Amino acid sequence: MPIPAFDPREFRATLGTFTTGVTIITARGADGLPVGVTANSFNSVSLDPPMVLWSLAKSSRSLQAFQQAGHFAVHILSAGQEELSNRFAKSGADKFSGVNLGEAAGGAPLLPDCSARLQCRTSFVYEGGDHLIFVGEVVAFDRSGLPPLVFQAGKYAVATRKVTTPAPAATLDAGWSEDHLPYLLGRAYFQVYFRIREQVRADGLSDDEYFILSTLAVRDGRTQAEIEAGLSHAGCNCGFPVLAGLRQRGLLRGEDSPRDLLWFLSDEGRRRTLQLIAGAKDIESTVLDGLGEWDAVALKNLLKQLVLSTDPGLPDLWSPSSLHATAAGA
Amino acid sequence: MPIPAFDPREFRATLGTFTTGVTIITARGADGLPVGVTANSFNSVSLDPPMVLWSLAKSSRSLQAFQQAGHFAVHILSAGQEELSNRFAKSGADKFSGVNLGEAAGGAPLLPDCSARLQCRTSFVYEGGDHLIFVGEVVAFDRSGLPPLVFQAGKYAVATRKVTTPAPAATLDAGWSEDHLPYLLGRAYFQVYFRIREQVRADGLSDDEYFILSTLAVRDGRTQAEIEAGLSHAGCNCGFPVLAGLRQRGLLRGEDSPRDLLWFLSDEGRRRTLQLIAGAKDIESTVLDGLGEWDAVALKNLLKQLVLSTDPGLPDLWSPSSLHATAAGA
Repeated sequence: MPIPAFDPREFRATLGTFTTGVTIITARGADGLPVGVTANSFNSVSLDPPMVLWSLAKSSRSLQAFQQAGHFAVHILSAGQEELSNRFAKSGADKFSGVNLGEAAGGAPLLPDCSARLQCRTSFVYEGGDHLIFVGEVVAFDRSGLPPLVFQAGKYAVATRKVTTPAPAATLDAGWSEDHLPYLLGRAYFQVYFRIREQVRADGLSDDEYFILSTLAVRDGRTQAEIEAGLSHAGCNCGFPVLAGLRQRGLLRGEDSPRDLLWFLSDEGRRRTLQLIAGAKDIESTVLDGLGEWDAVALKNLLKQLVLSTDPGLPDLWSPSSLHATAAGA
Repeated sequence: MPIPAFDPREFRATLGTFTTGVTIITARGADGLPVGVTANSFNSVSLDPPMVLWSLAKSSRSLQAFQQAGHFAVHILSAGQEELSNRFAKSGADKFSGVNLGEAAGGAPLLPDCSARLQCRTSFVYEGGDHLIFVGEVVAFDRSGLPPLVFQAGKYAVATRKVTTPAPAATLDAGWSEDHLPYLLGRAYFQVYFRIREQVRADGLSDDEYFILSTLAVRDGRTQAEIEAGLSHAGCNCGFPVLAGLRQRGLLRGEDSPRDLLWFLSDEGRRRTLQLIAGAKDIESTVLDGLGEWDAVALKNLLKQLVLSTDPGLPDLWSPSSLHATAAGA
């Protein structure tokens, strides 16, 4: 691993492997104006007395204000505050505009919706190369329970508790084990869907019928080919007999159009589908509670990434653009 | 959110919302002995000159060694180094025993298998309450590309890139949208399994048959009831006709036992199943490459958590203990 020359880009990349939270540090300048900068150079220093530190570039426009203020407020940003982080990372502009501000010790502006906030009195300002190191004693703090925003390798991230699982008891020659992603995905999916299926069956529906009704609940007036395009990769049989069966039971109605027969939910079909979806939402809540809010954010985030990176070119079920494409194709 | 009194436990919990990496800092004491401590109080300070800092409790047994050493080495730990982190977080014992050490500037011991390492010359040691702040100039560094270990809210974690997805175009009254976990799980699973299914079909097998063969590849000699217990939650039909069909095609053989008919893979069945599993492993590799190694670690981690927290009491496919239970029941 040794690197011969000292490449500044490589140095930054190396520092970037150290994961951090993201903070915005604010203060009230001697001129009465608020200043604020995004910083990930925050860290705790001391518990007794309670002290934290962060570093500010000597080239920062806000340097003087922070030096003179005597107090600063640290905001540990929550996962939803990416936009705020970007705003305070740029210089100039009115960073505070439109933000509902509170007031911290020493008049520092307090931003809402953070994971945590620390109000500090500046104890020391130390020399640190091209930065100054601000050490402050914490005089007040609060936290909200919101999952925090994370920064790693130059990108925003979210963190998730590490599970320590015992080494798999069995691994096949082919390298197939509990660690196999398709196995994990399938098992997770079926264990969650298993609970939904109970409700679906109690309503007298097959899995295929439930998938068709759910698809039409997002937007109906689809042709059989459109329904199939969205569901056939899931091994779902949405052939005419299944659709006609749902019509016969009064859950769907067909409507002739110049291009093809369009399928709509009947009023009864919509009522029952929305009821099933509400039931599925309840099951989702229970599952997410078991996982915890922070990990739920991370899991959904990763599944979205996986869905994007493995998309075989499925029509977007949710996008109004597929509706337009359909209309244009009509 | 304001907190009236200043509760030290609450203060630690508040600091814990700031996510960090985990480092081990080492040095060679004046007595020639190596010292090392786990610290998450590391951070970068300056790019030009390149400087980093970390804090050490004044009560640490290694304080004097670090003060006298004049150099230290920072190891940014990788996701697999939890055990090493725990070892260096405790005092006493021979922390370095069994570790394959290198040597950093100033004689500091260098640990292997980290995400990154920084060799530093101590520039300043600053006062910081119950800690001292060590600021060092980086004289050499390297990184391995291994995903880093993360620490958040007092627990080990892994971080994953944040996906910025546009707000869902459609949300039903029932609150069903693209953000619905069962939908995301199902779509991710089916998109991945879709690729495996192509190989399964090319081999003349149904999904159900593939699941049965894969289960028996982990351990065969199972009864129909045992196969069903592991697969029926997935909606898999593993009834006698399916098993008999596989036997007829020479992929399974049945063997009478005192308790029931036991199903085994035939040699041909094992050969073809292992071939399919190897194909599935290739598909997994492609999918994980698309996701990136760091996110792959995080996704598998979360899916394992989800599988644990939603387990309806399925028999453990992989555990030898289910084999023992079976044997005991025989």
